[in-house]
Amino acid sequence: MKKISQIGKASLGCGPLIQPLSETARPLRQQIFERVRAAGQMARVQLAKELCISPASVTTITSELIDTGLLEEVQTTREGEGGRGRPAVALRVRPNTRHVVGIKLSDREHTAVLVDFAGNMIAGEAIPRSPGAMGIDGILEAAERLLHRVCAKGGVDREAILALGLGVPGFVDSEAGVVHWSPVLSDRHVGLQAALRDRLGLTVFIDNDANLVTLAELWFGAGRKLSDFAVVTIEHGLGMGFVINHRIFRGSRGMGMELGHTKVQLDGALCRCGQRGCLEAYVADYALVREARTALNLPLGETQPVGVMLESLFDHAKAGNAAARSIFRRAGRYLAVGLSNIVNLFDPALIILSGERMRYDYLYATETLAEMHELMLDTGRDGPRIETHAWGDLLWAHGAAALALHELTEQLLGSTREMAAQ
Amino acid sequence: MKKISQIGKASLGCGPLIQPLSETARPLRQQIFERVRAAGQMARVQLAKELCISPASVTTITSELIDTGLLEEVQTTREGEGGRGRPAVALRVRPNTRHVVGIKLSDREHTAVLVDFAGNMIAGEAIPRSPGAMGIDGILEAAERLLHRVCAKGGVDREAILALGLGVPGFVDSEAGVVHWSPVLSDRHVGLQAALRDRLGLTVFIDNDANLVTLAELWFGAGRKLSDFAVVTIEHGLGMGFVINHRIFRGSRGMGMELGHTKVQLDGALCRCGQRGCLEAYVADYALVREARTALNLPLGETQPVGVMLESLFDHAKAGNAAARSIFRRAGRYLAVGLSNIVNLFDPALIILSGERMRYDYLYATETLAEMHELMLDTGRDGPRIETHAWGDLLWAHGAAALALHELTEQLLGSTREMAAQ
Repeated sequence: MKKISQIGKASLGCGPLIQPLSETARPLRQQIFERVRAAGQMARVQLAKELCISPASVTTITSELIDTGLLEEVQTTREGEGGRGRPAVALRVRPNTRHVVGIKLSDREHTAVLVDFAGNMIAGEAIPRSPGAMGIDGILEAAERLLHRVCAKGGVDREAILALGLGVPGFVDSEAGVVHWSPVLSDRHVGLQAALRDRLGLTVFIDNDANLVTLAELWFGAGRKLSDFAVVTIEHGLGMGFVINHRIFRGSRGMGMELGHTKVQLDGALCRCGQRGCLEAYVADYALVREARTALNLPLGETQPVGVMLESLFDHAKAGNAAARSIFRRAGRYLAVGLSNIVNLFDPALIILSGERMRYDYLYATETLAEMHELMLDTGRDGPRIETHAWGDLLWAHGAAALALHELTEQLLGSTREMAAQ
Repeated sequence: MKKISQIGKASLGCGPLIQPLSETARPLRQQIFERVRAAGQMARVQLAKELCISPASVTTITSELIDTGLLEEVQTTREGEGGRGRPAVALRVRPNTRHVVGIKLSDREHTAVLVDFAGNMIAGEAIPRSPGAMGIDGILEAAERLLHRVCAKGGVDREAILALGLGVPGFVDSEAGVVHWSPVLSDRHVGLQAALRDRLGLTVFIDNDANLVTLAELWFGAGRKLSDFAVVTIEHGLGMGFVINHRIFRGSRGMGMELGHTKVQLDGALCRCGQRGCLEAYVADYALVREARTALNLPLGETQPVGVMLESLFDHAKAGNAAARSIFRRAGRYLAVGLSNIVNLFDPALIILSGERMRYDYLYATETLAEMHELMLDTGRDGPRIETHAWGDLLWAHGAAALALHELTEQLLGSTREMAAQ
């Protein structure tokens, strides 16, 4: 018996034809845009087939999307049909007319990318910075400087930028545009979206690290093939993103998925957020560094950059230092707890591990995954697929750009008719 | 800025009218049925207003639903319009023509209810049993006996039963109809749905406890007012259900939401599932009973029923026995960890606590909720509303009936036209 009660499966299969409805029409426009975007290019007949809708409906809706500049036609040859090469027309996202900028603020550097509407990167930029929290003014200035530099580098006029996506680590209410806590911000509950919009005179969207990576995967990575997956980011913090039915799920009220701050130990290790026992306090880089002082026998007064300390810890572990090894081992075991909790709660088909710290993986990767499987329910099925994605340095900024593209297209798709009438 | 990227919000608001589409038509039929069911009764004009669709569309779709016997018209008077009392027509779920039975198998008793299609209870039945796992034959026999008895009691012919919903504790793959592990079943990976269908000659649906309570809430409780909520059940085990946008979410592959088996302690207490450190191993009744022996200083050989032992432990705690109090206190603290993890991941607006054990709540309720708030992220917002729902003994069976109603209507709503043509 096929059940259709689950989210993510509700839109499978073709039902009988019924009356028109306006409300559900918006998702269809989005579905068409999403499929074309994900596939790179796609013919109308294929869209009709995959979405179980009439060719006439596809023609109507894609005409609107073309009129508003979201899609365009592209000449193609039909491959795989005996090589006749008869010319055909496909649709693709129209890349050139619109641009967005993505900026990621983090502890060690600020990064920015300039992309077109199809997600192609025009230019990228990185500015190193000294670690620590900044005031709102410092944040605004850094964002403005990066915006100017990346536009100049890409040869794109600032006026041609449609929107800015900005990512910060920490607790971000994306809908309200408020950063409740971030290691890069010295204040709590900051209305960063509005402040940035006023400063730059641009449409601004903000979100946290993990959602950025998830959006980057949704737009440019795994989302091109899969409708449902989880992303776990391990870096200076530990984050999670979750995609159900081609859309990011942020929790019922928009502030969920804080895997790094789920508790794995009552009265456990102290976390940056001020609470105890958070998963992040066992697996994030600052957690490792904290114990590295002990393992490496460093004098209390001596300070080293986080990266240097981690490299040193890593070298010692490889060389057989038992204390150093036990630090990675413990982090790996707690990571296994966190991953198994995700599996037991969300039952994803794929978990993507992402982030700079993943390169220390091989020290404990096999054991960690084995431990995760031991902590998962025995359902007689295979566990989720685990992939480690090594994105480049500009991953986060790319994610911020995906945020801007995502929000912008949601807005555009929600008001196609109004736009077409202009 | 209003974001529409989140699940559960995607269907809010009225978009512009576009072409008909078959795929999304199915959800609309379901939406109409769901609203009428939730409201008890509702006028067509109100449906059109709430769903942002044309009155003509409502008329077409509701006609189909009436033709297939899912809805019926009911005479009503318009209230609140100056008391003119002009007669009007509303729609309601047609209760009488179809019946389903819900059965819950558990450790201490088996229960059953017979309900009509509007969810009204016709008859209920409970059979006590001695605890312990049973073979598949024992399960099938118990279910058959209960089905006969509840039908006889309700004066409904067995042939008039359209489907049976069956709930068992443990890991249930509802879609595949397989029970992977259950304390009431001596075998693992049992195809219970097919076995029961063959034995009874009835359409059968199976699911686990927590999803049953969630479906009961969705059909007969909180779901009448709210589109999104979480349910946590505490009884012989610890379970969770999650409703997003009026629908139950079981995880991407249908086996998620196993809160009781998320790990809250590395190498922690032994759980019934065979693993260590599961939340359930700290808060379920068997976990309390395990330590009760020590606290109450019971001889190792002496066995008492779980209920008796818990009552005794409870009395001792009330009387000031420090060891007994510490058992409840620890359970409460771990429960706080579990609840805060739900909040940090799912960010629900409401968490419903349900289950027999909730009556021990007042021993630690205030402290537990205070602790939960301390473990939640500081987002500057209120936490979720917490409600304790005290359902009667037949809650679980009612949930099993809701499962049957839910699955059956999903099937009926998915094939309305075909049915109408018969």
